[in-house]
Amino acid sequence: MAKNKYNQAVWSKRIKKKPSLLFQEIGSSIDVDKRLFREDIMGSLAHIEMLNKQKIITSKIKNKISKGLNKIEKEILKKKFLFNKKYEDIHMNIEKRLFQLIGDDAGFIHTARSRNDQVITDFKLWTKSSTKKLDKKLNKLIKTILKIAKHNVKIIMPGFTHLKNAQPVSLAHYLLAYVEMFQRDKKRFFNNLESLNENPLGVAALSGTSFNIDRFYTTKKLGFKKPTNNSIDTVADRDFVLDFLYAVSVCSLHISRIAEELIIWNSDGFNLITLQAKDLSQQLI
Amino acid sequence: MAKNKYNQAVWSKRIKKKPSLLFQEIGSSIDVDKRLFREDIMGSLAHIEMLNKQKIITSKIKNKISKGLNKIEKEILKKKFLFNKKYEDIHMNIEKRLFQLIGDDAGFIHTARSRNDQVITDFKLWTKSSTKKLDKKLNKLIKTILKIAKHNVKIIMPGFTHLKNAQPVSLAHYLLAYVEMFQRDKKRFFNNLESLNENPLGVAALSGTSFNIDRFYTTKKLGFKKPTNNSIDTVADRDFVLDFLYAVSVCSLHISRIAEELIIWNSDGFNLITLQAKDLSQQLI
Amino acid sequence: MAKNKYNQAVWSKRIKKKPSLLFQEIGSSIDVDKRLFREDIMGSLAHIEMLNKQKIITSKIKNKISKGLNKIEKEILKKKFLFNKKYEDIHMNIEKRLFQLIGDDAGFIHTARSRNDQVITDFKLWTKSSTKKLDKKLNKLIKTILKIAKHNVKIIMPGFTHLKNAQPVSLAHYLLAYVEMFQRDKKRFFNNLESLNENPLGVAALSGTSFNIDRFYTTKKLGFKKPTNNSIDTVADRDFVLDFLYAVSVCSLHISRIAEELIIWNSDGFNLITLQAKDLSQQLI
Amino acid sequence: MAKNKYNQAVWSKRIKKKPSLLFQEIGSSIDVDKRLFREDIMGSLAHIEMLNKQKIITSKIKNKISKGLNKIEKEILKKKFLFNKKYEDIHMNIEKRLFQLIGDDAGFIHTARSRNDQVITDFKLWTKSSTKKLDKKLNKLIKTILKIAKHNVKIIMPGFTHLKNAQPVSLAHYLLAYVEMFQRDKKRFFNNLESLNENPLGVAALSGTSFNIDRFYTTKKLGFKKPTNNSIDTVADRDFVLDFLYAVSVCSLHISRIAEELIIWNSDGFNLITLQAKDLSQQLI
Repeated sequence: MAKNKYNQAVWSKRIKKKPSLLFQEIGSSIDVDKRLFREDIMGSLAHIEMLNKQKIITSKIKNKISKGLNKIEKEILKKKFLFNKKYEDIHMNIEKRLFQLIGDDAGFIHTARSRNDQVITDFKLWTKSSTKKLDKKLNKLIKTILKIAKHNVKIIMPGFTHLKNAQPVSLAHYLLAYVEMFQRDKKRFFNNLESLNENPLGVAALSGTSFNIDRFYTTKKLGFKKPTNNSIDTVADRDFVLDFLYAVSVCSLHISRIAEELIIWNSDGFNLITLQAKDLSQQLI
Repeated sequence: MAKNKYNQAVWSKRIKKKPSLLFQEIGSSIDVDKRLFREDIMGSLAHIEMLNKQKIITSKIKNKISKGLNKIEKEILKKKFLFNKKYEDIHMNIEKRLFQLIGDDAGFIHTARSRNDQVITDFKLWTKSSTKKLDKKLNKLIKTILKIAKHNVKIIMPGFTHLKNAQPVSLAHYLLAYVEMFQRDKKRFFNNLESLNENPLGVAALSGTSFNIDRFYTTKKLGFKKPTNNSIDTVADRDFVLDFLYAVSVCSLHISRIAEELIIWNSDGFNLITLQAKDLSQQLI
Repeated sequence: MAKNKYNQAVWSKRIKKKPSLLFQEIGSSIDVDKRLFREDIMGSLAHIEMLNKQKIITSKIKNKISKGLNKIEKEILKKKFLFNKKYEDIHMNIEKRLFQLIGDDAGFIHTARSRNDQVITDFKLWTKSSTKKLDKKLNKLIKTILKIAKHNVKIIMPGFTHLKNAQPVSLAHYLLAYVEMFQRDKKRFFNNLESLNENPLGVAALSGTSFNIDRFYTTKKLGFKKPTNNSIDTVADRDFVLDFLYAVSVCSLHISRIAEELIIWNSDGFNLITLQAKDLSQQLI
Repeated sequence: MAKNKYNQAVWSKRIKKKPSLLFQEIGSSIDVDKRLFREDIMGSLAHIEMLNKQKIITSKIKNKISKGLNKIEKEILKKKFLFNKKYEDIHMNIEKRLFQLIGDDAGFIHTARSRNDQVITDFKLWTKSSTKKLDKKLNKLIKTILKIAKHNVKIIMPGFTHLKNAQPVSLAHYLLAYVEMFQRDKKRFFNNLESLNENPLGVAALSGTSFNIDRFYTTKKLGFKKPTNNSIDTVADRDFVLDFLYAVSVCSLHISRIAEELIIWNSDGFNLITLQAKDLSQQLI
């Protein structure tokens, strides 16, 4: 069983000398990835429950770790957790604290698991939850536009080509164009869910583990739909992040477009609308 | 009925003076979009058939235009068509030639249609056909990898982390990682088909037309599945191009990765494979 | 004289209703731009000294403001300053605090100045100081490489083409290639200094001010070399930021390349070096 | 002396089997790089003159090659040269033709030269000449704007913030903002000249050549200012291309901005100008 002394860096076995402070600064990602704390703890909990079910660790150890992790989550939520750049990322910060709280048994959270599959699992869980949040926001936005459109079917405005008056259109028709765009944005986020629902946990460093793990158990526990197929692909796959970022980018383009159009409509040249925070809908009625 | 004198630029009504040669050079896209010629002709043919079915143009005019367009397609295929930068793009090049061939009746191809919806229709048809071609190539690539993998299940190679030997893996397992990637690439292209199957023809400049057109007829004729919903969205929507380019980019990343790995395997340091064009499969067996 | 009630948003005159919390969240940049606090205070100090010298404000007011700003700087340095998202950015956060500290006379810091030229001045001062810091780091990096190269003139290593052994080269020669790259990086940062040395302060919102200001005075005070030429250009110009980011990007490419090469040299295939933190130089000797 | 049989690909010694047509298609860049033909011939001419001066090749061979290359240039200019995808790029296309014209002595153009330094030399010469062309165009553009500005000092127009009328400005003042931008663009192109004036010829594949070449001679002959310092840097350096593309991008942003503003001024909302090709200047007077 692998154990990390809790005051050493991960790579301290290979490189003996202490790194410079600058290196520590560059190597640390804790400022960014501390937002993954919920997913990291959730992943570890599912993992040790599976280890226990498979009789790889005892119930006693499982309970000890579980108690420790729950305590850490509370500390973080209460802002009483001290994030340390020296421990590089959220995974190591939580792990080091777990060693402090429960001693060497903390090392069992790495039985049959590598930091590699741990990181991807956290990242996927976070991306999936962000995807769902954005989907809800898009639903609300679409609903709002539909409501405004409904009240403005008979308001006639100029349709422009290159900002020259071209054809008269209904304001409702104009606004419904954005419903189409945001519906496409929703689909882009939705299409990424297929990958986001494949469980990476269990692929270990790159080629799995010799322990008798049960990937279907953690799959169910963590809300995934099935385990990923190929460990070598899984360990390096960040397509789900690219797809997420791409969906965000195109959606931002659409939002930027409506913002630009409101600026033009509100300009002293066109003077089609009067802006008032929160009240665009009422005022357009 | 709108007619364009066939020796004038589209915007010649508003701006009287002749543009400089430089302007013509900048404004012209014919070098790029001449590859859309098939789609442009296909779109015009479907449009005039619909116009005739709806009794907007006579069968005589329809046949005249149809004959002219077919002649133009043959000229292009036989490389006897003279593309002219002065006419800016593929749409105008074909239109000008049609005026030469059949006279002022050529103008009827713009009855109830704008260059705006014409352009998007061409672009969608081309993107859809390119998507299908790339999908076929990906199928072939996946098949080839599967074949090589099948013959190399028992070949053991080092799995690397940061190019250090980490765990032994089967070459087949390594190769199957790429099957996962290319399967995801296929899905990305596939997901774009929903938009690519919505027919933009009929939205005209931006708010449709007062002619009694039948968008369902052209939808069927051109192999689309349904007409687009909102004319203002349709006329400016290029999401289907972004989605296509994004899918191409991610797929290229995967191809670039396998290429880089082959270079490393083939390096004098690792010396794991010997390259021989066309023969990677046999040699790996 | 313009005065801002210190509990209102900048645009509160035009839009009466309170914005939603979400809007506040989106509109605020304080998390990012609080790092400009030194430059913001420095710019305001130079501005009020100039106003006083030009007899636009009295010495009494100048001193009051100056004392207030110095107090604020100390509060920020001692981490006793409360940054408030409601006040959007660093400029407004400091301004609101100044009103709290010295009352309505705080409003005089906007006499003959707009937030527009204030923001650019801060941003230029910060970019210039960052440029100088990066230049120093590059100097140190080049010096280190030169030192390592000096001790490794006679170490022969393979020069690769596509990772195949091509020609033997001296390690020193290899390392000196990076000196060339980092020298070019230094020039790119240096070339941006010409713009960074032009003082934007005084262009006000976009077309200057009717107050009798002295841009040469603030130019000298803030370490610029000359005032910018055209107020409309100045107010929208962010070329100096693009140039800075571009220089950072290309430099990062070079650093990424040396990192990748060290990974390859350190691989089990090539095994040319043994990594040990902080000690690359000694170990290469 | 290295000789290439003129009907074989460069890498034909290592890989015996014929490549697939697809590979040929992918590997070929002739459609893009044929525009480098002048620079390629110029570079080869300078190289063989140097070889002759250094007594590495005889005057007879030099004259034979020189005559052949001049003939090829004429063929290309007269559009009588057959570019062949099989020969991949402009360098090989010209070389193969040279073998056809003068026989095996053509191989001497690779004495003490690699395709590596040949390619960079061509690319630098082309980028330098393009830089100079763009600089001239920017000069003309600036001159035109200055002329229009001169005639419009007393034309008052609204200065906008977020398209709301803010302060009145002189049209001349507005236009002079663009002079500032294009002057910065000129500097960006100019700053790249330092690299563009360093001669890469002579670095060979990556570590120079054992032939007694004279890099100062080709430097002078080709209009460079000095040879590059480090062969390993030179052979992989494409910073001069990045810098060129970056300068083009920022300049394009400025041009795009003026275009967008003319569209807004010309809109039915603002109606500040009337567009007429070629005549903006007169009409603004």
